[in-house]
Amino acid sequence: MRNTLVVLSGGQDSATCAAWAKLNFKEVEFLTFNYGQRHVKEIECAKKIANLFDGKHTIIDIPVLMGGETSGLTNKDIDVNQVDEKSGLPKSFVPGRNLIFLTQAASFAISKGISCLVTGVCQTDFSGYPDCRYETIQALEKAIYLGNENLVRDEGFKIYTPLMYLTKSQTVKAARKLPFGWDALSLSWTCYEGGEKPCGVCPACELRIKGFKEAGEIDPAISI
Amino acid sequence: MRNTLVVLSGGQDSATCAAWAKLNFKEVEFLTFNYGQRHVKEIECAKKIANLFDGKHTIIDIPVLMGGETSGLTNKDIDVNQVDEKSGLPKSFVPGRNLIFLTQAASFAISKGISCLVTGVCQTDFSGYPDCRYETIQALEKAIYLGNENLVRDEGFKIYTPLMYLTKSQTVKAARKLPFGWDALSLSWTCYEGGEKPCGVCPACELRIKGFKEAGEIDPAISI
Repeated sequence: MRNTLVVLSGGQDSATCAAWAKLNFKEVEFLTFNYGQRHVKEIECAKKIANLFDGKHTIIDIPVLMGGETSGLTNKDIDVNQVDEKSGLPKSFVPGRNLIFLTQAASFAISKGISCLVTGVCQTDFSGYPDCRYETIQALEKAIYLGNENLVRDEGFKIYTPLMYLTKSQTVKAARKLPFGWDALSLSWTCYEGGEKPCGVCPACELRIKGFKEAGEIDPAISI
Repeated sequence: MRNTLVVLSGGQDSATCAAWAKLNFKEVEFLTFNYGQRHVKEIECAKKIANLFDGKHTIIDIPVLMGGETSGLTNKDIDVNQVDEKSGLPKSFVPGRNLIFLTQAASFAISKGISCLVTGVCQTDFSGYPDCRYETIQALEKAIYLGNENLVRDEGFKIYTPLMYLTKSQTVKAARKLPFGWDALSLSWTCYEGGEKPCGVCPACELRIKGFKEAGEIDPAISI
């Protein structure tokens, strides 16, 4: 059994991955990025989730370089609910955000002797982000292996993406089956707006609500 | 003719790349990373080089995550001149440093509509860093393309590595031929130690000295 590092945003997917990793690896550590996202609230959720699984948790401030400030995720003047006409991408897209997170996480992990990562990226039900696709992750995994070959030659380097082909509804069902999966979900935060309560209308909220409905479950993160 | 972004450390190789890019691209911008390197002095050199080529210059602070603090480049307690016995890598190696820089630079460039990068990585005369190799750069280029596909589908995404197969001596000769190449070299900084003057004994100094000697040239950065 290997140790692993979970990239933990504090959202629904990474919360589920945390439970999955806890079940399948020897020791689990967590890494969260503070990149100027509007929904800083998810960082607080990440702390609670890491605590739930009793894992060492590192939070780092990292600039996600946006020369043109073209993403609604980091620029409050841009509506996250819109789609960019030229690229067909949601305006929440931060170019290559997951590439940045995963290369940083890989360096962190490898410098500690951990030769794999777990991330909640998912290409089904995805928000149209090309950096969440299997092909992208596969190419990056290869680049990380080659870029650190002398350090990971024995064990290889692996990016686990247990949710890659699950719909949000299947992810909800998966969390039900995993030890402490439901507790993790109850602590997770998804809404892009980062207000007091989920806005219920941003693309992230829409996906989450749809997932719980289709799974026939009540979202444990929303107490009334 | 495309615009480009040069990853400019302020060292000999990136200084030469700056001159090469200025000659071959329409507009050239520069990006420098402050990652806690011991030789902060190279950042001052990068500023001067960007100024020489009259290009917009962005410097960002970026943490290079080292969970174990295993590199002499960022940890002053580690001797940069030594080689790690287990991996066979120099103790100056920061795992995946170039992957981190290049993914960050790519996001920055793409968000500004620039679809290529220029970097001075080099696998000949290299310091044993696996992230400077052609295969690593090629795999990363693919990951960056896939991760941003909707934004770069028309132009593609390219990482130019004009020095990849040159020896340090050939790089010195190349700088001679490039407009303002020699001026750029005279502003560059290479020594890992980052003192008043180059230490002359660290692996980076050794390579630089050897390169100038073999090219039969006097290093213009050292005035007596």
